[in-house]
Amino acid sequence: MYLAKVYITYKESILDPKGEAVKKAIHQLDYQSVASVRMGKYFEITVEENDRAEVERTIEAIADQLLANVTMESYRYEIEEA
Amino acid sequence: MYLAKVYITYKESILDPKGEAVKKAIHQLDYQSVASVRMGKYFEITVEENDRAEVERTIEAIADQLLANVTMESYRYEIEEA
Repeated sequence: MYLAKVYITYKESILDPKGEAVKKAIHQLDYQSVASVRMGKYFEITVEENDRAEVERTIEAIADQLLANVTMESYRYEIEEA
Repeated sequence: MYLAKVYITYKESILDPKGEAVKKAIHQLDYQSVASVRMGKYFEITVEENDRAEVERTIEAIADQLLANVTMESYRYEIEEA
């Protein structure tokens, strides 16, 4: 069994309105040292499979087809034994 | 300058309806090996500050006050020089 952690963020060139809103709220709390905020999604996915390469294929397929909007978002992932 | 990566997830005892919905969608794509999905939020925050301990204090304060609902969610973070 493996645990995959998948991180999805907007591509650098894409405006991130939620992140901008969070940055404004942080500044209103008076943490002026915060220069930028990007907001993304995070998934923890457990896969019942013993072949690590197969887990990687599954996670990439799921991320491409379902989790990320690959036009606007990019993703990265880590896989660990669970 | 530091880059903080903040991960927010529901506590283990809290039902995660979005994660459950994503798991169903994954099964409909026929990836039956996926046993569980937990969905969370992910923030990349750049802080213009040279004192790493001060960055940690700032990130913890922001996470507690703004990013996480600490009743239902827990968070972890990593800090790296940027």
